[in-house]
Amino acid sequence: MITLSSPVAFKDLQIDMAHGAGGKASRRLVEGLIAPLVGACEPLTDAACLTVGDVRIAVTTDSFVVRPLRFPGGSIGELAVNGTVNDLAVAGATPLALVCSLIVEAGTPTEVLQAEMQALGSAARRADVIVVGGDTKVVEHGKAAGLYITATGIGRVDPRASLSAGLVRPGDRILVTGHIGDHGITVLLARGDLDLAAELRSDTRPVQPFAAALIDAVGGGLRWMRDPTRGGLATSLNELARDAGLGIVLEEDQVPVRDEVRGACALLGLAPLHIANEGQFVAVVAPDIADLALRMLHAVPGGEAAALIGRVEAAPARTVLAVAAYGGTRVVDMLVGDPLPRIC
Amino acid sequence: MITLSSPVAFKDLQIDMAHGAGGKASRRLVEGLIAPLVGACEPLTDAACLTVGDVRIAVTTDSFVVRPLRFPGGSIGELAVNGTVNDLAVAGATPLALVCSLIVEAGTPTEVLQAEMQALGSAARRADVIVVGGDTKVVEHGKAAGLYITATGIGRVDPRASLSAGLVRPGDRILVTGHIGDHGITVLLARGDLDLAAELRSDTRPVQPFAAALIDAVGGGLRWMRDPTRGGLATSLNELARDAGLGIVLEEDQVPVRDEVRGACALLGLAPLHIANEGQFVAVVAPDIADLALRMLHAVPGGEAAALIGRVEAAPARTVLAVAAYGGTRVVDMLVGDPLPRIC
Repeated sequence: MITLSSPVAFKDLQIDMAHGAGGKASRRLVEGLIAPLVGACEPLTDAACLTVGDVRIAVTTDSFVVRPLRFPGGSIGELAVNGTVNDLAVAGATPLALVCSLIVEAGTPTEVLQAEMQALGSAARRADVIVVGGDTKVVEHGKAAGLYITATGIGRVDPRASLSAGLVRPGDRILVTGHIGDHGITVLLARGDLDLAAELRSDTRPVQPFAAALIDAVGGGLRWMRDPTRGGLATSLNELARDAGLGIVLEEDQVPVRDEVRGACALLGLAPLHIANEGQFVAVVAPDIADLALRMLHAVPGGEAAALIGRVEAAPARTVLAVAAYGGTRVVDMLVGDPLPRIC
Repeated sequence: MITLSSPVAFKDLQIDMAHGAGGKASRRLVEGLIAPLVGACEPLTDAACLTVGDVRIAVTTDSFVVRPLRFPGGSIGELAVNGTVNDLAVAGATPLALVCSLIVEAGTPTEVLQAEMQALGSAARRADVIVVGGDTKVVEHGKAAGLYITATGIGRVDPRASLSAGLVRPGDRILVTGHIGDHGITVLLARGDLDLAAELRSDTRPVQPFAAALIDAVGGGLRWMRDPTRGGLATSLNELARDAGLGIVLEEDQVPVRDEVRGACALLGLAPLHIANEGQFVAVVAPDIADLALRMLHAVPGGEAAALIGRVEAAPARTVLAVAAYGGTRVVDMLVGDPLPRIC
């Protein structure tokens, strides 16, 4: 008998782009090789929780390697802050401090670094977090791509937030804070490799105000949150289904997707559900407070497109099903492979 | 009038290897460009301190880009742990948790990554710290050099440790935990670019046992600690002289340096005082407990070569002077330029 909780085997002979894409291959690499060797034993979430004295703190780290460094709506410096504070936000934490470590390619113009440090500083002020330390390494020309930023965030977990896939129950409702796919498609188009243009901007922003609104309004009725970055909404929901041992029914017509994203995806053979986001989260709430939770998100500036997009069911367990308005059901898988390398 | 506390100007048009070497150019980059733009306003130390509830925690982050990935006595995975917990140790903190973010070059053999994750896990167990989270990004072949690791450590500051350059007084004594220069010279020789060989190993190790021995024995008599990594002992002492507004007199003959390091430095035109270490720290202690402190270091396994190497004087302020046994005095400057790129 094969069970899904058996250890994942990592048998690939070399590391490829897909292993960094946030989907199935990434999960195999992390669960099958990295986590057991480094001795990490906690479940994999956006942020780890530690208890220090009588305070629970959340810690998260992410390396940002996006190319190009600047794209409509944002840049790597801004992304490093928002991506990090968002991992804290979906853990129910308010950011206390950030540390940022830079790997700069020799020969990078000072004005490029300067612009990104400005973007990082502005984003930190907007997210109300202070940068308390950092490190800078320079590698030879050709051993990086301009600038890589690793940001680590430390936050204080709201004692009212009790968030875990284990708390999710059949009947619970699923919410998303806004349009999906904007970031991934924007970055892809900004590379200029494709003969496509669209009026799109990255959605990069701090999502803490949305998380705070939900915690304030519904407290314990909020079960779980995740920011669907690499791997997109489909991957986050599959992780939820797996971790909760439950099924997810996604009302695909209810998922907010801009026409430009839908169009680009259709041309490129991609699914919006697999495209990275940098300013959204998906949440599970108890059924009785779902409408209240949605109204709360709508009331936060930038939350106008928030939507209820599905529900949790007992079966089929560990599966995400998409249902269309006119009937038809299909299984939605995690991201496989890497259609969009280096999106964040 | 020019004062040393005036803002540092960063006027270089591009980022070069020297900006990552840990010496003067690094300081100009960080103080003249990065820190003001990102809004970091604290003095630059090995670790930032935060108060969470009634607990003081220290946070430090470092990117490791050493080449080759493996060298006699260690490897990048081990260095990432030791370098990070050592920054906590010299802040008077015991490590609570680490997070590690990887940037892997596509095409890297799995066995290379596996070996480094094993090294990282073993080093974490040896340093008695747990890895609670991480991130993995993959960049295209040619956009990194195998593997870069950014490690961030969180530690709990010992309430008995009150460490600051501001607490250093004339008459205080300076201690070092062991031989200097082993790491930098070992890595340089391991590259194989030079027609030189020596029986040397990196000194990479966790220094927490040494820091704990000093805090236990002399408490408030311990004023300041720093691990002299990039830029070497000379740079750390210059930073101390500058931050304390005092002078340092270094008895150069007392500084423990292996013959192999001295020989390689002589051939290469380098000074051992400028070479990176990964398993040592330099400390300032009150004069009345200096001998006790030295005995405590000697009693810790691996501390046999610890030595008293100098003293603090009121003048000449902000200067490090080296005195030789047979007379002769010279000014020891911070590292200028980058004789040894990518040493950690």
